[in-house]
Amino acid sequence: MYRNLRVVPQLIFGRGSVRQLADILAPQRQDDLSQVVFLVDRVHREKSFVRELPAAAHDLILFVNVDTEPKTVYVDELTRQVKDFSGRRSCAVVGIGGGSTMDLAKAVALMLTNPGSSSDYQGWDLVNHPGIYHVGIPTLAGTGAEVSRTTVLTGPTRKLGINSDYTPFDQIILDPDLLAGAPKDQRFFTAMDSFIHASEALLGTFINQFSRAFAEKSQSLCREVFLGDIDAAVADEMLMIASYFGGMSIAYSQVGVCHALCYGLSYVLGVRHGIGNCIVFNHLEEYYPEDVRTFRTMLEKHHIELPRGLTVGLGEPQMQEMIRVALSLEPLWQNALGPDWKAQMTPERARGLYLRM
Amino acid sequence: MYRNLRVVPQLIFGRGSVRQLADILAPQRQDDLSQVVFLVDRVHREKSFVRELPAAAHDLILFVNVDTEPKTVYVDELTRQVKDFSGRRSCAVVGIGGGSTMDLAKAVALMLTNPGSSSDYQGWDLVNHPGIYHVGIPTLAGTGAEVSRTTVLTGPTRKLGINSDYTPFDQIILDPDLLAGAPKDQRFFTAMDSFIHASEALLGTFINQFSRAFAEKSQSLCREVFLGDIDAAVADEMLMIASYFGGMSIAYSQVGVCHALCYGLSYVLGVRHGIGNCIVFNHLEEYYPEDVRTFRTMLEKHHIELPRGLTVGLGEPQMQEMIRVALSLEPLWQNALGPDWKAQMTPERARGLYLRM
Repeated sequence: MYRNLRVVPQLIFGRGSVRQLADILAPQRQDDLSQVVFLVDRVHREKSFVRELPAAAHDLILFVNVDTEPKTVYVDELTRQVKDFSGRRSCAVVGIGGGSTMDLAKAVALMLTNPGSSSDYQGWDLVNHPGIYHVGIPTLAGTGAEVSRTTVLTGPTRKLGINSDYTPFDQIILDPDLLAGAPKDQRFFTAMDSFIHASEALLGTFINQFSRAFAEKSQSLCREVFLGDIDAAVADEMLMIASYFGGMSIAYSQVGVCHALCYGLSYVLGVRHGIGNCIVFNHLEEYYPEDVRTFRTMLEKHHIELPRGLTVGLGEPQMQEMIRVALSLEPLWQNALGPDWKAQMTPERARGLYLRM
Repeated sequence: MYRNLRVVPQLIFGRGSVRQLADILAPQRQDDLSQVVFLVDRVHREKSFVRELPAAAHDLILFVNVDTEPKTVYVDELTRQVKDFSGRRSCAVVGIGGGSTMDLAKAVALMLTNPGSSSDYQGWDLVNHPGIYHVGIPTLAGTGAEVSRTTVLTGPTRKLGINSDYTPFDQIILDPDLLAGAPKDQRFFTAMDSFIHASEALLGTFINQFSRAFAEKSQSLCREVFLGDIDAAVADEMLMIASYFGGMSIAYSQVGVCHALCYGLSYVLGVRHGIGNCIVFNHLEEYYPEDVRTFRTMLEKHHIELPRGLTVGLGEPQMQEMIRVALSLEPLWQNALGPDWKAQMTPERARGLYLRM
């Protein structure tokens, strides 16, 4: 049995394409009793493209705080805010921001039609009802959240996505104009997410030719951008595609060692996903030798300094929690190391890796 | 305004995945009053995967004849056969074969819900109603018909596709097992369709970074397969992806000189699309210099002989018809040569190219 991949069925790519959002939402607005919910990263609050959003008087714009990785309690709170806002039915959810905002939008769209807490759905294929029609408009490139079938959330006991066929967006708008102005380090860390997705897909055991093609191209785009001599405007366009391709590469595969360890780091220390991945990947030459070398060359060329000593002075219970969260991600380890992964990635081995970071 | 691309929303890739067709069709079979229509290239009639198709007693299997390029009259005839078969509503159309069969399936799915003749819809965005749910299962790799928003048909006055957002499949099954047994020449000619799609996208004026990434990867897969030393089984898997990527590359771009001239050749002389493209491309070094050289190296390595002298002795009315059909394809020429294409591709210039073939 192969997975029947759900691919985002509608996409627009192009500079200024965010201005087509009104046309895209029009067929969803069946009557005056329906509202569109915009979830926008609050850092964009004053940007002109946000002021020009096609929001009707009765629509809801929520400026979200993604200073920390998205939590299930935050998803539940946002969902409640939407439900309490008016008597209107929500006909669309639009997420505008980086991977965290994308994930919040996907999760809220699901939680508007599924009962309980979002933490009930962390796992694989636990969602029973399609969500509200949802649109993703990324303002950072690399996470692949715009195409993935997951929304990664930190819950009460673990960091794990809501993986389901209902999770992917119904529509994405890839407007490279929206990438302008991202801080240099954040742009780099986020882009590396797609480089690492590709690396974990290519060197994983689940790989097939479909995932391979997307992964190889995603990496070559990243190499061109960060090791070549590409005009900045074109580079943003390429990174947007690298992100899409990186996301597609794991659609049929899975992430691996880096993401599993990063989830533990993030769960316990609150480290953001982009930088966390980079911190972890830098210590994985044993698993992804050539790609880690390439990654270090990119770091150097762009004068990116990674934090060190994150686990210095970490208490034993926290270390154990970190290891527990990381090792709970079975499919990631199976992809990375094969069926006997437990023999290779013991708690002691994971501890050894964490102690280096 | 950028096109809001319709991407095939569900796909399965993998050897033996055709056996998942029953599961895929199950949700479409709402009651005993609905039928599934299978359009199968008749060359596969005796193949085991066809004998094992999940056809219910009241379903309709039509073995189609694609010895010639699909014609609008044939689409209309097949549509009539489906409508006359029983009182049942068609709930799904499944196309199994090469690009021609894919195109017939897409066209019949549209014509079951749209009035008139399929020739009424040759052009861009002329279809008013969504078609019947339709599934594509390619048995040749290269045409990109499994992902494209067109179904190329020869009508009473021209060869032109039904290009619409309703044309793409709802589901595709990419099973590399089904490519086994294709004649060597046909396999090569069909694969070159994706190589040429990519070439026309990359060197066209409509290109963007989305199309570029798909086109570059499609070509590199073709080069690996036909110039490298790849195991035949893996090669089939790669060609299946090259076809998908080649198709995606023109989704945001357009084909160019080769396809336009090939449509004329095919309209007047009945030359099949795969071989026709190769015959034309071989004479286009002026437009696609590097790719034509690579193409010739592939021809040589695989001992493929192209027919020559096709237009020798062709009557003047036929030559004029060929030129008329080719030059009627405005968007293709605009992509290939820019807005002033008419100054560059005069009827005399087209004639000169045809006379070489």
